[in-house]
Amino acid sequence: MNIKLTVEYDGTDYHGWQIQANRKTVQAVLEKAVSTLVGRPTRIIGSGRTDAGVHALGQVANFISDKGFEPHRIQRALNALTPDDVCVKVVEVVPDSFHARRHGRSRVYEYRIWNRSSPSPFQLRYAWHVHDRLDITAMRQAITCLDGEHDFSSFRGAGCDAAHPIRTVYASSISRNDDLIVFTVEATAFLRHMVRNLVGTLVEVGRQQRSPESFAALLDARDRTRAGMKAPARGLFLNEVKY
Amino acid sequence: MNIKLTVEYDGTDYHGWQIQANRKTVQAVLEKAVSTLVGRPTRIIGSGRTDAGVHALGQVANFISDKGFEPHRIQRALNALTPDDVCVKVVEVVPDSFHARRHGRSRVYEYRIWNRSSPSPFQLRYAWHVHDRLDITAMRQAITCLDGEHDFSSFRGAGCDAAHPIRTVYASSISRNDDLIVFTVEATAFLRHMVRNLVGTLVEVGRQQRSPESFAALLDARDRTRAGMKAPARGLFLNEVKY
Repeated sequence: MNIKLTVEYDGTDYHGWQIQANRKTVQAVLEKAVSTLVGRPTRIIGSGRTDAGVHALGQVANFISDKGFEPHRIQRALNALTPDDVCVKVVEVVPDSFHARRHGRSRVYEYRIWNRSSPSPFQLRYAWHVHDRLDITAMRQAITCLDGEHDFSSFRGAGCDAAHPIRTVYASSISRNDDLIVFTVEATAFLRHMVRNLVGTLVEVGRQQRSPESFAALLDARDRTRAGMKAPARGLFLNEVKY
Repeated sequence: MNIKLTVEYDGTDYHGWQIQANRKTVQAVLEKAVSTLVGRPTRIIGSGRTDAGVHALGQVANFISDKGFEPHRIQRALNALTPDDVCVKVVEVVPDSFHARRHGRSRVYEYRIWNRSSPSPFQLRYAWHVHDRLDITAMRQAITCLDGEHDFSSFRGAGCDAAHPIRTVYASSISRNDDLIVFTVEATAFLRHMVRNLVGTLVEVGRQQRSPESFAALLDARDRTRAGMKAPARGLFLNEVKY
């Protein structure tokens, strides 16, 4: 049986998704639970990594089990075996060929910015606090350049091991709901720190330290040294992986 | 100078608002910060108590200072002096006669219910997780009886020290946004545990264990022994105090 899991996690206390020796990671916590459930060491395949401190509303993973279980029993068992900050939201039986990483057609991320002078106790772990009122009209104008296929070298993090820097963005938007600004972006896949680097630069546009036009010019320049700072991990959520 | 504070707090790690010997309370944390700021022990007056674990988006308090400060400097200083789970959102200079408790005309509370089969890592501290799908049409029908002046003895918590059980409800509503149900209620003031007792009983209506009509009958009965369980503190937020 090939089992697909849709997983939510609060990444605050994790060193990201991927298993690392002597570090608490989401994959390690889930593999331990799955291995206990199926009764032997079992590898799970994630749709992709998330960095330390990044959250997920819809990370996807799969594993092969030679034991048969009802999906709702797998869900209940895994949620009993994982800590409260990791939750299996959906369990589905999928064809044997399904592979959570290779078959992902696109990923949707959102980045949350808490935009008022005082911080909020409820947003501390889940948003980047930016004091200065941001000009979201300018930010919206800036992101119109993102749609389509581009070389994202300007927004590629150090140590990125992707084969090439070309990615296709399907959609991006910026919404404001009172003090919360949300940047949402869907692409085939993302380079290392790409969303956080985009957001760091977009906030400079929102502060009117950089024009919307210069944002487009930066994308064209393919030069990481000219982009803004990397936004902190805590505002980033992997919302959905589409297959 | 009479200073009015509007305060947000995550009540998870506090024994409620009111000062108690040897316990961490929000009032104690704020009084310590205010006393440091003004340079002498200073009492602050809250609009009312909140229970252990209850949150606030708009608790109001005031204190008298014989030193003059700019409001934005008071705000910055208090936020530097308080822990991250307490935040002073607004600081205003008000007339000497202003009293945060006595002059409050009404209080608005909301109660959040996380209503899907699996828990959410992001709602653990901020909502009551109810697995069974709730019938909010029935819950909405039930709360139509709340508006106006009533004897709320059926929903009065043990140990309530109010002089009488009569309260006036100005408005109440129930909204659903995907998996999150929010019950909002505005009244002159509230009896001890009144909102949590109302919600515990409303969830029985939503589960169809009790009819909307029996909810109205229960209000009329003025008999606490017939109401439902008290909903947990973590779903309750003091949203606003109106003056």
